[in-house]
Amino acid sequence: MTRISLTGFGSHLPGTPLTDDALPPLDAPLTEAQAQRIGVTRRHWAGEHDTVPGMAAAAAEQALHRAGTPAADLDLIVLANWTGRRYIPELAPRLATLLGADRAVAFDLCCACAGFLYGLAITDSLLRTGRYRRALVVASETTSRRAAPGSRASRVYADGAGAFVLQRDAGRGGTLLDHELATDGEQHGIMDVTEDGHVRTHLRQRELAGLAAESIARLTTTLLERNGLSADDVDWFVPHTGTAGIHTAVRRRLPFRPERILTNFSTVGNVSSAAVPVALDHFVSRGLVKPGQLVLSASVGTGWYAAATLYTV
Amino acid sequence: MTRISLTGFGSHLPGTPLTDDALPPLDAPLTEAQAQRIGVTRRHWAGEHDTVPGMAAAAAEQALHRAGTPAADLDLIVLANWTGRRYIPELAPRLATLLGADRAVAFDLCCACAGFLYGLAITDSLLRTGRYRRALVVASETTSRRAAPGSRASRVYADGAGAFVLQRDAGRGGTLLDHELATDGEQHGIMDVTEDGHVRTHLRQRELAGLAAESIARLTTTLLERNGLSADDVDWFVPHTGTAGIHTAVRRRLPFRPERILTNFSTVGNVSSAAVPVALDHFVSRGLVKPGQLVLSASVGTGWYAAATLYTV
Repeated sequence: MTRISLTGFGSHLPGTPLTDDALPPLDAPLTEAQAQRIGVTRRHWAGEHDTVPGMAAAAAEQALHRAGTPAADLDLIVLANWTGRRYIPELAPRLATLLGADRAVAFDLCCACAGFLYGLAITDSLLRTGRYRRALVVASETTSRRAAPGSRASRVYADGAGAFVLQRDAGRGGTLLDHELATDGEQHGIMDVTEDGHVRTHLRQRELAGLAAESIARLTTTLLERNGLSADDVDWFVPHTGTAGIHTAVRRRLPFRPERILTNFSTVGNVSSAAVPVALDHFVSRGLVKPGQLVLSASVGTGWYAAATLYTV
Repeated sequence: MTRISLTGFGSHLPGTPLTDDALPPLDAPLTEAQAQRIGVTRRHWAGEHDTVPGMAAAAAEQALHRAGTPAADLDLIVLANWTGRRYIPELAPRLATLLGADRAVAFDLCCACAGFLYGLAITDSLLRTGRYRRALVVASETTSRRAAPGSRASRVYADGAGAFVLQRDAGRGGTLLDHELATDGEQHGIMDVTEDGHVRTHLRQRELAGLAAESIARLTTTLLERNGLSADDVDWFVPHTGTAGIHTAVRRRLPFRPERILTNFSTVGNVSSAAVPVALDHFVSRGLVKPGQLVLSASVGTGWYAAATLYTV
């Protein structure tokens, strides 16, 4: 049986952490209680010279270094991004060049906030065919640029990149065990982007939270059942939730004990598809998530996408 | 050995064919000789109500009908498009809903003009894992909207959609035999898009033609050698070339006899990633390409991507 190993993790957050005071003022000031409900106290914003491929390269270099894999040995690069891409040129080929991954096939993937987990699933399949051996999956987002200045979203949307290195039959590292994907085009219209490139949400936060929690619960249940696992068998649940309201709904709806749910949303904000690899790298680097432990990650993305991935680190 | 079958083809060209006279005037009128060198005499342009998912659905419905596959049985939909997609929402989930493919996982793919062949390769891998059985790969492009009005490109860029239905172990139809992909980020900057959304090319047409011919020749040679084939074993070479100049360079550089090279560029223009499935459907429907015949398709895309696919119909 072919084993797809996870041999390295990395992340990059641009610039210095920004507290609320360091951000442009809101159109409608928040009370202390409202600010607390937003749930983000610090975040990073890409500066003028921070690009999606540049941030992706910083996260990828860290992951490749930890994996002991030279970029030149990569066969495949998948870059998840929706916040910086516009028509052509796309960004994955540029990332390959920045890394010196000269022989890698490189392509961009969409799927909004679910792009990284969709990318892992697609990469897993490409590695299993035997045609490719070493792959890099990166998510890199400049989400802050998709928030209308002065909107509440500008307190939540933030920037960053995260990366996993995958290798077929590496004989070391963690293992990509299983995944479950779902798409629901009936929810196609709940979010879109203005001419100015700013996200608009056409659904109440409460309904959005319910939809997200329901999607994540369904896929997570499928994944656990298929692998003969209960929630207690999972060491860590590392979801991307996007807002504090969705996080609360997910925590209530899912069977994981609160102390087993890991997120660094409060200190990085909503970095969209980069959320899972940024959080994972954060908690692995700090020694909280340990080699061999079982992790379940899940994400939803507007479109509507849902994804859940089971792996050991 | 798992076999990935091609069970149906379809295409859609919006509205009626437009001759040069029906198009807005050019900034710099062409001589008769210059107009002939452009090599496009007719093309279709999407009207106000023709959308990327709508055109994709029309092509897909034809392909699904020919495959005898109800949309509800689809497990997977991959939509190649770069000309109509902008941030969120992406388009594949909407396509799934238009078709009634309620349980399909659906995602968009990029890779500029090479998106359809990249999509076939990725779908092939996902089907081979055994997790998905029936898939639809569609390319749908509104390329005309990416040409500056009055530019020569406005005579070449055109709109359309094409689709293949794939099924694991269908026991009928054609077979997806092999593919080869390549990416070259060093060429990242040769084309981009203005603020108005119009393509700019920063390379001379002659150099672009040379680069395209070289990329297509390299991948095609690799694919033939790996499968123990010579050019004469291939019944039809169905490339996407994008411009008449590239087509001439490809024809000169590759070992296929001219009468074995099929394109309908002169009557559909450059429909980007949709070119290969539109041409294939055209020639299969007319009985020129016959069941069981061996076809090699190849495409380049700005980014820079190259792809070649070997299959029987």
